[in-house]
Amino acid sequence: MPPGGGIGLIDGALALSGDRIAWVGTGDLPRDYANWPAEDLGGRLVTPAPIDCHTHLVFGGNRAREFEMRLEGASYEDIARAGGGILSTVSATRALTAEALAQAALPRLDALIAEGVATVEIKSGYGLDRDTELNMLRAARALGRMRPVRVVTSFLGAHAVPPDYAGRAADYLSEICFPTLRAAHDEGLVDAVDGFCEGIAFSPDQIARVFAVAAELGLPVKLHAEQLSNTGGTALAARAGALSADHLEHATAADAAALAAAGTVAVLLPGAFYTLRETRLPPVAAFREAGVAIALATDCNPGSSPLASILLVMNMGCTLFRLTPAEALAGVTRHAAAALGLTDCGAIAPGLRADLAVWDVGEPAELAYRVGFNPLHRRIFGGRG
Amino acid sequence: MPPGGGIGLIDGALALSGDRIAWVGTGDLPRDYANWPAEDLGGRLVTPAPIDCHTHLVFGGNRAREFEMRLEGASYEDIARAGGGILSTVSATRALTAEALAQAALPRLDALIAEGVATVEIKSGYGLDRDTELNMLRAARALGRMRPVRVVTSFLGAHAVPPDYAGRAADYLSEICFPTLRAAHDEGLVDAVDGFCEGIAFSPDQIARVFAVAAELGLPVKLHAEQLSNTGGTALAARAGALSADHLEHATAADAAALAAAGTVAVLLPGAFYTLRETRLPPVAAFREAGVAIALATDCNPGSSPLASILLVMNMGCTLFRLTPAEALAGVTRHAAAALGLTDCGAIAPGLRADLAVWDVGEPAELAYRVGFNPLHRRIFGGRG
Ligand SMILES: [Zn+2]
Ligand SMILES: [Zn+2]
Repeated sequence: MPPGGGIGLIDGALALSGDRIAWVGTGDLPRDYANWPAEDLGGRLVTPAPIDCHTHLVFGGNRAREFEMRLEGASYEDIARAGGGILSTVSATRALTAEALAQAALPRLDALIAEGVATVEIKSGYGLDRDTELNMLRAARALGRMRPVRVVTSFLGAHAVPPDYAGRAADYLSEICFPTLRAAHDEGLVDAVDGFCEGIAFSPDQIARVFAVAAELGLPVKLHAEQLSNTGGTALAARAGALSADHLEHATAADAAALAAAGTVAVLLPGAFYTLRETRLPPVAAFREAGVAIALATDCNPGSSPLASILLVMNMGCTLFRLTPAEALAGVTRHAAAALGLTDCGAIAPGLRADLAVWDVGEPAELAYRVGFNPLHRRIFGGRG
Repeated sequence: MPPGGGIGLIDGALALSGDRIAWVGTGDLPRDYANWPAEDLGGRLVTPAPIDCHTHLVFGGNRAREFEMRLEGASYEDIARAGGGILSTVSATRALTAEALAQAALPRLDALIAEGVATVEIKSGYGLDRDTELNMLRAARALGRMRPVRVVTSFLGAHAVPPDYAGRAADYLSEICFPTLRAAHDEGLVDAVDGFCEGIAFSPDQIARVFAVAAELGLPVKLHAEQLSNTGGTALAARAGALSADHLEHATAADAAALAAAGTVAVLLPGAFYTLRETRLPPVAAFREAGVAIALATDCNPGSSPLASILLVMNMGCTLFRLTPAEALAGVTRHAAAALGLTDCGAIAPGLRADLAVWDVGEPAELAYRVGFNPLHRRIFGGRG
C-alpha cells in the first residue's frame, strides 16, 4: 500500500527479515531471496495488520445493566440513582489492581487480536485519581507484554470531572490531572496526551492547559472533539499540531481545512455513533475535499461503544458513514498509524514492521462488506506467526 | 426459561441424559443423580443454544463489489449494468454444484456455530430454476451432516422472478416454482414453504397460490412480508396460519393483532434494516401489546444482510429496534424455535434437546450489550460438546 493513497493492490510476493519487511513487489521474489525459506500463501489477500487507534480497553465492570435499564424504559435519573453512567465505571475501575485491570481487558484484547490487530491504543481516564490513572496505564503496558501486540498509551486524565471536584474542573486539572500526568510520564507510561472537549467535560480553555503540560513534557496530543456539539476542540487540536482529533460528528468544513493544514488525522468512531443512535454524520465529504487523513477505530469502552471488532468498525464506517471500502482499509492501517504518530507500520513496504494480516477473501472490499464475520487466515506480528 | 415469558433465570443445576435434558432446577441436583458424572460450570450462564430462524446461508459468490460500487457513487443502473443485484447471486449460485454450495456456506455456518448456534434455518431462492433450487436444499441438508448442527429448510422458489420470466410471475409459479416444490418435497428436502410478498416480488394473490400448494403437500408456511411497503402479506400469512411472518417494518397494529390471533411469530431482521439504512422501525410496541411472539434472525444473505453473527443480531435488536435484552434472548431461543415449528428446543426443560450454550458472562443482558464480541465458553449440541 503506497503512501500516496489508493489501495495499491498487487499480485506479488514479499520477503520478511527478522521483524521487518525486506522486500515487496509484483510477480515472484527476486533471485536474492532464492535460498530463503519460502511459503505459498495461496493467492490470499495480505494487508498491513489492522491498528485500533482509539480504545478505552482497560476498565473495571461493564454497563450491561444500564443498557438493559434504558431499554426497559428507565430515565437517565433512574440510571444515575442506580449508580449507572461513567461514574459506575470509575468506581469499578478504582476497585481493581493494575493486574486485575489487565486481566479484565484481556478478552477484549484477544477479540481484537483474533481479527489480526497488531497495534492497539489504550487510554486511561476511568480513574480520575492518581493511583487508578497510573494503574490503568500500567495495565495497558502489561497487556503489551502478555500478548504479541503493540500497545500505545494515551493519558486521558481530562476525560471527566470526578464527583469530588464537581463544578471545579480547573481545580481537578491542577490538583489531580497534571501531577498524575507528570508522574505517569516519569514512569514511562505515556505515549500521548488526550482530552475530552465537550460541554459535559472540559472547555477548550481547559484543554489548552492540558496541551500546554503535554508540550512541556514533549508529548504529542490528541483530542475527543465535536462529538455531541461544536465547541472548537478540533480547531484547538489542529493549532496544537495534534496527532488526531476524534469523533468529529459536529465538525465543520473550516475544521476540516484546519485538520488538513495541520496534518492532524480525523479518527471516526462509528461504534459510538451506532450505540448512541446519533443521526448527525461526520463531514466526510469535507474531509475528502480538504485532504484530511481519515482513520477508524473501535472506541471500545463500556458505555457508548462496547465494541471489540475492527472488522465491524470497517463495515460501520462504510454502512453508516459512507466511506468506501478502500478508505475503511486505509482507516485501520495507514491512517491509524498516523493517528498514533507511528511511521514503522500501517503499510507494506521495505523497512517497515512485518505486522501483516492474511485473509481468506477474494478482494479487499470483502473485509468491509461482511458484518460479524472474521475471514482472518493468519496474523503475522513482527515477522512471527 | 419457562414458556410463560420472562427470562426465568435461576441459580441451579441441570442433568443431561443422551441428547436430552433430564432435569433442571434451583440449587443442587437431586439425589437420583448423585452417581452421575458431574461437572462444575463455574457459575457461568447457561442458555438454550441460539437458533437462527431465518437465513439464506447457501449461495454462490458474494456482492462485495456491488457494496463497493455503491459507496463509490455508482447508481443502481450502473450496478445492474455491471451484473450486480440479486441476479448476480442467482448466476453465481446456478454455477455451483450442491457440494460446492455447501462448501461455500460452511464458513458462514461455522461463524454461527462459534457463537453457540445449534439450529439454523436455510432457504432456497437463488436458483429460480428446478435444478438449482433442488441443489440449494440438498446443500442445506448436507451442511447438517457436515457439522453438529440441526438444519431446517424452507423452499423459497417464490423469492424473485427470474429474467426469462420477467413480467410473467404467474407463469413462473406454475411452470417452475410449483413443480420444483413438489420435486423437492418428494426428495424430503422441504420443512416449510416461504415466499417474498412485495411490489418487487410476488403479490398477495400469487403468494396465496404458493400457500395453497404448500397446504396440499401438508407443509407449513412462512412469509417475507411488509419489508419495504405494506402489501397485506402479514394478514395473508396470519390467515394461512403461518409459522412466521418476517421483516415487518411496515406492518400495522391490525397486522399485529392478526399475528397474535393466529399464533404466528414475528421474525425481525435488524441486519437488513441496518445494511439498507432503513428508518422505519417494525411496530414493536404493537407486537408487545397484542402479545405477538418476537423472534430475531440474521437473514444472512449476500445482498441486504451479509451478517453471520447471532450475537450481533441480539445487539441490533436492542440498539436499533429497542427490544429489551430479555426479548432479544427469547427472540433467538424460544420464539425462534416457534418460528420454525420446533417444540423440542429453544428452552431449558426436561425432555427437550440438550442444545445449550455456556457463556462467560455475569448476567444475561451482557449477551445483547456487547458489539462484535463472543463470550461463548462452550457449546453443547444434543448433549455433546
Ligand atoms: Zn474515546
Ligand atoms: Zn430473507
